[in-house]
Amino acid sequence: MKGKLYIVGLGPGGKGDMTLRAVKAIEDSDIIVGYTTYVNLIREMIRDKRVITTGMRRERERCEKAVFCAERGNRVCIVSSGDPGVYGMAGLVLEIIAKQNSKIEVEIIPGVTSATAGGALLGAPLINDFAVISLSDLLTPWDVIQQRIRAAARSDFVIVLYNPMSKKRRKHIEKAREIILNCRKPETPVGIVKNIGREGETVIVTDLQHMLEYQIDMVTTVIIGNSSTFAENDRMITPRGYEV
Amino acid sequence: MKGKLYIVGLGPGGKGDMTLRAVKAIEDSDIIVGYTTYVNLIREMIRDKRVITTGMRRERERCEKAVFCAERGNRVCIVSSGDPGVYGMAGLVLEIIAKQNSKIEVEIIPGVTSATAGGALLGAPLINDFAVISLSDLLTPWDVIQQRIRAAARSDFVIVLYNPMSKKRRKHIEKAREIILNCRKPETPVGIVKNIGREGETVIVTDLQHMLEYQIDMVTTVIIGNSSTFAENDRMITPRGYEV
Repeated sequence: MKGKLYIVGLGPGGKGDMTLRAVKAIEDSDIIVGYTTYVNLIREMIRDKRVITTGMRRERERCEKAVFCAERGNRVCIVSSGDPGVYGMAGLVLEIIAKQNSKIEVEIIPGVTSATAGGALLGAPLINDFAVISLSDLLTPWDVIQQRIRAAARSDFVIVLYNPMSKKRRKHIEKAREIILNCRKPETPVGIVKNIGREGETVIVTDLQHMLEYQIDMVTTVIIGNSSTFAENDRMITPRGYEV
Repeated sequence: MKGKLYIVGLGPGGKGDMTLRAVKAIEDSDIIVGYTTYVNLIREMIRDKRVITTGMRRERERCEKAVFCAERGNRVCIVSSGDPGVYGMAGLVLEIIAKQNSKIEVEIIPGVTSATAGGALLGAPLINDFAVISLSDLLTPWDVIQQRIRAAARSDFVIVLYNPMSKKRRKHIEKAREIILNCRKPETPVGIVKNIGREGETVIVTDLQHMLEYQIDMVTTVIIGNSSTFAENDRMITPRGYEV
């Protein structure tokens, strides 16, 4: 039997936000590979399958195992939350395949990413141009990240921050806020969403001035409005520009 | 019976890229409201339902009708392709609801947006920070749009262009390319995806120098790589920074 590697985005967390194609790919697979937290999101769907999980920071090992298993004729799903192409495993898998000159069949299945899943919970903050920036400086220099925040703030993008804070990295979100405050009013709406579609889901609409009073961590997404974003009835809305 | 308004993202086009929640919301609804092209994507699912379609540029009318019907106790889906929060109807509906001081129940169902659906077809171009910009100047001044392109190009964002060209607007994509070429090499990979998940789907990996040789229109999404994006085996990959 010919092997195949699916690179699957599970969406933010709840099964409802998975696509039909993602469900099918999981059903079609013999082996499921993923970070433990993500695999746990789909436990009930994969009782009859071989599961290979690895912990945090073991991304390369995980991708290599998935490619290895597919090369040997298995149908393999490597799963991640959100979309596998947004700070996800799709790039690393394709890089490994290119390096190994592997000819396995690959199908990337996009998913709902935190930016739009969080946006939906907050209202409609992303209705105009937006920039997606990760505050993790493990793989991108902090200088480059700051420059991007500055550029996005100055040119009035709505700004979506992924990985805004970790236990070892607490100051980046403060600095990001400071940079943005140089260009936007303290009353600019800010949305903070946590554990989207999972246990402990929280949705907060606040503003630049008060945002640091709320708990922000690695499972949080922060969305900062542009100059025309407004808050109403605990919803955050960026007008597209239609007359209402 | 209490009315409810679902604002539903159908994903890029094929039924496989719809979420389970979107399917459920459509099944649960009596009335489906949408732009004709989008409603046609789900024709087979809605044979037993009342369907209200309106043509292009009738966005406000569409949203008002949807709110009106939900106010009168109907369960209503207003559908759009992609994610309803990305240049979509979610904002306008919420603005109308706020203006009318309506108390109807609203659920926004996020979907896979063209950026990540197109990214999946191209490979993994969005693995690092990216900016999403619409080239339509119907509702945003062209000056503002150009400034955003310039800012994104200078600070090495991957750039995703929505609505890159229409019949009446052919020059914006040329100008956008020119701005980006001031900061990036002509060999920078560019992905052009058209009719994602629909009849006539096309996927092209080219570069800044040659991108204008391909057909680009309103159903096209253009993704321009950052300084480290590379093309290999007709795939476009932006490295996250892992050692491979």
